[in-house]
Amino acid sequence: MIYLDNAATTRPYDSVIARMAEVLGEAYGNPSSLHRMGMEAENIITEARKTVADSIGAKENEIYFTPSGTLANNTAILGYLRRNKHKGNKVLISSVEHASVYNIGKYLLENGYTVEWIPILNGEPDWIWLEEHLDTDTALVSMMAVNNETGTVFDIPRLKNMIDRKGLKTVLHSDCIQAYGKLNISVRDFGADMMSFSGHKIGAPKGIGVLYVKKGVLLEPLYLGGGQENNLFSGTENVANIAGFSEAVKVFRKEKPVEKVKALSKLFLETLLPEIPLNSKHSLGTVVNISMNLRSEIVLHMLESEGIYVSSGSACSQKKGGSNRVLEGFSVPKKQQDTAIRISFSHLNTEDEVRYAAEKLNEIYLQNKKK
Amino acid sequence: MIYLDNAATTRPYDSVIARMAEVLGEAYGNPSSLHRMGMEAENIITEARKTVADSIGAKENEIYFTPSGTLANNTAILGYLRRNKHKGNKVLISSVEHASVYNIGKYLLENGYTVEWIPILNGEPDWIWLEEHLDTDTALVSMMAVNNETGTVFDIPRLKNMIDRKGLKTVLHSDCIQAYGKLNISVRDFGADMMSFSGHKIGAPKGIGVLYVKKGVLLEPLYLGGGQENNLFSGTENVANIAGFSEAVKVFRKEKPVEKVKALSKLFLETLLPEIPLNSKHSLGTVVNISMNLRSEIVLHMLESEGIYVSSGSACSQKKGGSNRVLEGFSVPKKQQDTAIRISFSHLNTEDEVRYAAEKLNEIYLQNKKK
Repeated sequence: MIYLDNAATTRPYDSVIARMAEVLGEAYGNPSSLHRMGMEAENIITEARKTVADSIGAKENEIYFTPSGTLANNTAILGYLRRNKHKGNKVLISSVEHASVYNIGKYLLENGYTVEWIPILNGEPDWIWLEEHLDTDTALVSMMAVNNETGTVFDIPRLKNMIDRKGLKTVLHSDCIQAYGKLNISVRDFGADMMSFSGHKIGAPKGIGVLYVKKGVLLEPLYLGGGQENNLFSGTENVANIAGFSEAVKVFRKEKPVEKVKALSKLFLETLLPEIPLNSKHSLGTVVNISMNLRSEIVLHMLESEGIYVSSGSACSQKKGGSNRVLEGFSVPKKQQDTAIRISFSHLNTEDEVRYAAEKLNEIYLQNKKK
Repeated sequence: MIYLDNAATTRPYDSVIARMAEVLGEAYGNPSSLHRMGMEAENIITEARKTVADSIGAKENEIYFTPSGTLANNTAILGYLRRNKHKGNKVLISSVEHASVYNIGKYLLENGYTVEWIPILNGEPDWIWLEEHLDTDTALVSMMAVNNETGTVFDIPRLKNMIDRKGLKTVLHSDCIQAYGKLNISVRDFGADMMSFSGHKIGAPKGIGVLYVKKGVLLEPLYLGGGQENNLFSGTENVANIAGFSEAVKVFRKEKPVEKVKALSKLFLETLLPEIPLNSKHSLGTVVNISMNLRSEIVLHMLESEGIYVSSGSACSQKKGGSNRVLEGFSVPKKQQDTAIRISFSHLNTEDEVRYAAEKLNEIYLQNKKK
């Protein structure tokens, strides 16, 4: 099996699984309990919060554990707007966001907000458009750091500079789910006021996310309960998954897997026929998006029969008829949208795997060309 | 160590931990992915949904996996009210609910709803009060099945009968987090239109809950994204925790641990000095709440020094100054509230442990009495 769908989800590291099993079996106390079992569980969370905070140069009280990246994105955007109703009614959202941001934009539109979709020009946010549309009525801008379908890197610090230069109080949220652990994110240089991370994209389990919220930015929770995570994410903390997240962060900080990933995607592109169109612009290298000369589903099946697992786009949108919205946002021609294949790498992949996958794609491409 | 704080959280079963590790390491695909790895993950969820549905005689499409019991409770109540604005403005909520229901009630009060708190009389919902207050303007009633601080069982079928007898369309939600796996809940006889369960109270991990929603009852999601769980709980499914939940359900259905728990609590009460006041009325036996003659925190520390772990109330409310609200709701005198101790059993406890704990409590009680 050659698993090249790491943007959909990654295999948890062995050390993550081992740590989780340990916490589940031994440190199973409720962190809110006042006895030693509770404190032990709470200490695991405290340690994990510090690990995550250190990884981006944040303060510990700026890090919130959430049940998912989706809830991090939702709480950042909806939570900010509900809590800060006086700060403007306008929201700018990039047109190529993941469903967990894009669908909030649609919801906001239906609920009295002005939502403007930031256009993408040659794989970059349209900076001239932004210059014109960012104004004192703009409460929030949401722009992802690395696109999940193309690997394209957006220049978040430049956006922050624009906000500052204009003297605006606009808050900047960035979905960093495909960026965290891959791109160097230091809160001081990066500039986002809020950032979302997700465990299962970095070798931690599914069912754990992180929201970074800069000190002073206030949010309203989307749901209520025991007041965990400073009232933002109530519910007994998922201690094992938090510990797993922390372990994955330690691994990626130590082993820097992204360097190997970049080398693998370079090898992949060098092996791929130059005539196969590339839909990824300014890609970090973690994700490569190409267009074949057959419909995506057919290519997926042909690759699967060879034991190669890739995707036609975001896992979250595949069952709903493909990912045309995002590729459309990147101005990929319609025909190329229908034949798009996303290959996403992990440091667990080998050079042989990557070369083999590229060769299979070449083979399929050439076979179909002859017909 | 004698762990008698199982209402706060349970140790996951060994078979649950083993199953989770297996899923994390081998079936790590994204259930939304179209390839075999995705389908394998999806099959695990489908199988788990069937297991949970079977355990209460529900249909599979009435079972939703959620990140927590808290989100199940919130989505049931807020999601129903937001989706069904025309069905009345009044909500009845029992006065002794867990924070994840009680705090929604407070939120609703601040947001234009009429919330009336159902009083408790001799350990039962005040049926006469209910007869008077349940009316055509009542959109929803929320009443837990088993109280988390006292173990008290509320008669949900009787409440459902009252709604039906009055010919009302009022929807009945029941927080069954302390009841599931312990009380026999069959959707046909039980009568609740919505029920919330939580994994970590039944030997499954933290970070997984279930919401049962009767066919035809429509909810608005609290957050948006990839549309997982029929749009109600977006975000990549926590496959390992779902598998863990399913495994725990299989264990409790096979081993019927509640029978042993009831025997243990009976032994506990038989060993306890009869003069120690009991705050639990109509308890299922899973939880026993007593009042000592010393402040709760002091007793907790004395027991902890003997390796006995209990609590003074709900874990979720302990750090916020105790659980007076719930005991107050049960008309426990103020002095008894401040000295309350909650002992909650698991089938993993032994008779020796339970007897030892009761004897230690007797000892503390008698020592303090002499002074």
